[in-house]
Amino acid sequence: MGQKLKLVKNATGRMVPTVVNGVKQTPFEGVGKYKPEGSKAAPPIRSCSDYPADGNKVVGSLKEALEKCGLKHGMTISSHHHFRNGDLVMNQVFNIAAEKGVKDLMWFPSAAFPCHEPMIEHMKNGVIHHIEGSLNGPLGKYASEGKMDGLAVLRSHGGRWQAVQDGEVHIDIAVLAAPTADEFGNATGDRGPSACGLLGFGLVDSIYADKVIVVTDNLVPFPCVPWQIQGQNVDYVVVLDKVGEPEKIISGTTKLTKSPDRLYIAELTAKFVKEAGIMKDGFSFQAGAGGTALAFAIYLKEMMREAGIKARFIRGGSTKYLVEMLEEGLTDFILDGQTFDLEGVRSMRENFGHVNTSPFTSYNWHGKGNFASMVDAVVLGATEVDVNFNANVVTHSDGYLLHGIGGWQNCLFSKCTILPIPAFRNRIPIIVDEVTTVVGPGELIDVIVTERGIAINPLRKDLIEATKDSGLPIRPIEDIKAEVDDLIGGPPAEPKLTDEVVGVVKWVDGTVIDSIYKVR
Amino acid sequence: MGQKLKLVKNATGRMVPTVVNGVKQTPFEGVGKYKPEGSKAAPPIRSCSDYPADGNKVVGSLKEALEKCGLKHGMTISSHHHFRNGDLVMNQVFNIAAEKGVKDLMWFPSAAFPCHEPMIEHMKNGVIHHIEGSLNGPLGKYASEGKMDGLAVLRSHGGRWQAVQDGEVHIDIAVLAAPTADEFGNATGDRGPSACGLLGFGLVDSIYADKVIVVTDNLVPFPCVPWQIQGQNVDYVVVLDKVGEPEKIISGTTKLTKSPDRLYIAELTAKFVKEAGIMKDGFSFQAGAGGTALAFAIYLKEMMREAGIKARFIRGGSTKYLVEMLEEGLTDFILDGQTFDLEGVRSMRENFGHVNTSPFTSYNWHGKGNFASMVDAVVLGATEVDVNFNANVVTHSDGYLLHGIGGWQNCLFSKCTILPIPAFRNRIPIIVDEVTTVVGPGELIDVIVTERGIAINPLRKDLIEATKDSGLPIRPIEDIKAEVDDLIGGPPAEPKLTDEVVGVVKWVDGTVIDSIYKVR
Repeated sequence: MGQKLKLVKNATGRMVPTVVNGVKQTPFEGVGKYKPEGSKAAPPIRSCSDYPADGNKVVGSLKEALEKCGLKHGMTISSHHHFRNGDLVMNQVFNIAAEKGVKDLMWFPSAAFPCHEPMIEHMKNGVIHHIEGSLNGPLGKYASEGKMDGLAVLRSHGGRWQAVQDGEVHIDIAVLAAPTADEFGNATGDRGPSACGLLGFGLVDSIYADKVIVVTDNLVPFPCVPWQIQGQNVDYVVVLDKVGEPEKIISGTTKLTKSPDRLYIAELTAKFVKEAGIMKDGFSFQAGAGGTALAFAIYLKEMMREAGIKARFIRGGSTKYLVEMLEEGLTDFILDGQTFDLEGVRSMRENFGHVNTSPFTSYNWHGKGNFASMVDAVVLGATEVDVNFNANVVTHSDGYLLHGIGGWQNCLFSKCTILPIPAFRNRIPIIVDEVTTVVGPGELIDVIVTERGIAINPLRKDLIEATKDSGLPIRPIEDIKAEVDDLIGGPPAEPKLTDEVVGVVKWVDGTVIDSIYKVR
Repeated sequence: MGQKLKLVKNATGRMVPTVVNGVKQTPFEGVGKYKPEGSKAAPPIRSCSDYPADGNKVVGSLKEALEKCGLKHGMTISSHHHFRNGDLVMNQVFNIAAEKGVKDLMWFPSAAFPCHEPMIEHMKNGVIHHIEGSLNGPLGKYASEGKMDGLAVLRSHGGRWQAVQDGEVHIDIAVLAAPTADEFGNATGDRGPSACGLLGFGLVDSIYADKVIVVTDNLVPFPCVPWQIQGQNVDYVVVLDKVGEPEKIISGTTKLTKSPDRLYIAELTAKFVKEAGIMKDGFSFQAGAGGTALAFAIYLKEMMREAGIKARFIRGGSTKYLVEMLEEGLTDFILDGQTFDLEGVRSMRENFGHVNTSPFTSYNWHGKGNFASMVDAVVLGATEVDVNFNANVVTHSDGYLLHGIGGWQNCLFSKCTILPIPAFRNRIPIIVDEVTTVVGPGELIDVIVTERGIAINPLRKDLIEATKDSGLPIRPIEDIKAEVDDLIGGPPAEPKLTDEVVGVVKWVDGTVIDSIYKVR
């Protein structure tokens, strides 16, 4: 249900709760302001004398493994989302819990997808109390309508690592689907009939969870190499007929756009990267999986080829477009966090330069640096942007929670963050006075590219200077907004929201940056 | 100085102290008996806001890095030994400490070598209070003579991981020499002018130390791939002209024997592995770096080739002999903990099947299993063995501490542990009534191979049965001992030891298995 909570104003001016699902929270204090104290979470010390000397941890069924892990009321069960909409394991896990009469579980996936719609029944029946994780599609709608017992907690990929590492979320049982594994629990995503590339989103679970179950449909003799997940962190191994449908990794956001407007935006974005002087030998970029971002990469590739420019690294989500660049010698490396198509999977297996990463290497704010801030330019999507460059990526203008954060917040730390977005979608303007939900603070967002022009954040005088004679259609953000509002007949309608909180958005440091409200 | 300590009798009947260097100890309770409680060590939570956004952590000098790490009295400074006798960094570190007037440091190397003899001066001057780690050669002699201020604490490779992981040893500053690194601190041992293969012995340091310095002589543009050490754990990067002499990796123990007796022992050992039915398709073995163990691998290779047998994996210390087996298709994998020659380094860089491991994957007893117990046969050295199959690998019969444990204790968990040893060395019998120092309990040691016959541990009825018609010279251990004692004219002289303790030997679970006494 939605919750009437005591709210306080945070550094973005948003009202946020001070307690979420029983855990005390720190309101967002500003970018880089919150200083963590204390020590990382400390998993229990284990002993080899409690594990089979021959290394064989295979048990007969998923149910048996869950029983051996001591599955009981109130536990937190985690999983990764490398199969995206093709996951075949987690519905089974909660079906077993339901069958056993276990209640009040917290599901802590790195992301949920439409294939997880059956979890709604488990929430209605009290098997799952609430979900903390990206809620894409039906589960997000369910939460928006105030039907979930607990609050949704949305974290970035880096924020999820931070939350587990810092002990904010304690995982009782991690269930890690693995396309290939050995009896000892070494596991990899880059090979096997269900190969999905890598397992980085499950790495933190494997390190910090009390109990870890590896579920595979391709058991190989020890050793499974590479061991993206290390057997020394694994308690049980389960063999199923099929753990995932890798062909469903390509879903929704990961298709190349065919819209002429969006192709134009993508091309403008690539031109901006070139004209701003970012595209030069040894540079780096990251483009998300959205259709426009994919098109951007293709335009940039052409420009690089023409200019004889080679990147040092490209950050993935990898796609066949990035793989072509690697194999053509247009970049030394792809540093990849998740494969978005099967060419990405193949390349990770075959190419030395296609390196698997984790949210620890790439995004964790509570480490000694991470990769995100070293990237020269990042191209990301957004559902809304306001005139102060604050952006939203989780709710729509009608208030519905429909998307996860992914690595989006983490990527904002790039040296140049660019959001190529259409000026309106379905006759709803995208540039607004105030975003429905603040997911990214405006100070980190440098450039908005629309089909009606490019707006540069006034804080980035260097970019304004670098592109002033470029001939690109650079305009104040307010001008673009006014033009669109005129065209559509005014700003979007206020979303019909109650004052009941149904979820919160975490910042990369674990503080609360905004609340999500129940839709009326 | 040697210490007169309160000693208690442990499960092997040895007298051991209950407090070592101020830390409370648990006496050895028997193999697999001690059950750890509590949680792993928890390093402080860091924040990216305290590290450079551009990822550049390079500072001007080793001295500057140590100062930034807050080097001060009483700290613990750690290092790895992948350069073995060719390390060029750690003497510099303690020279800087001396220059700055810092005292009472604990040096916590994974091993020390003769090249570290200058540390004796630092111990005399109080810069180093004591060393915990393998003390090969002069430093061991120094400790044996009761000259070190604290007690030597000898741990296996797995025991060192366990001690850090469990919080028994807290590392203030880890100084990790790296043949290749980037500005962010990603580092690898497998390439660069000083390539030494891998950096696995420094991995636990990088994860748990408060501050981590990577020292390299080959700085490459980000990203350094592979990242055996992850930059997210690193505070500072220092560039020196030369960090190590990889040609000195091959030193002492890593040379193939030319002794006809030892070649015969090696051949007998290989025959035993064959006749006992261990050598079959998909089997695994590990042979240490000693000259006899190397020769064993060469004999076994010939037998495998003749019989058309392929191993699934070989555990390294890798050498050119193992690399030949991999490249010839006689094994699918080398799972390598340290490269013992430059062919090992090359192969690790070039061959997918040559996999770098760490003490966590291979040896840590306080994990959810490790690789050691999955190995079908392991061939190791020893300085002494007693008639109950207890073995010693750190002291000689004269009581002098001259060797580290390495992975020796950890390897004893193999399915078949074989010690090929000469029946006497320099007219001193090796099979004794009681070993000077118990490093490995007899119940884990299965077979002793000497030039005067093979002794099988009576506990291993299966091996006795399997080889009874093999024609191999299998004899009771007492018979071999009696024959040698007759030949030499009696058992070795009692070592001239005082009752002052100068060091302890840890078991793989962190308990104390024996004491080392001051030599008179």
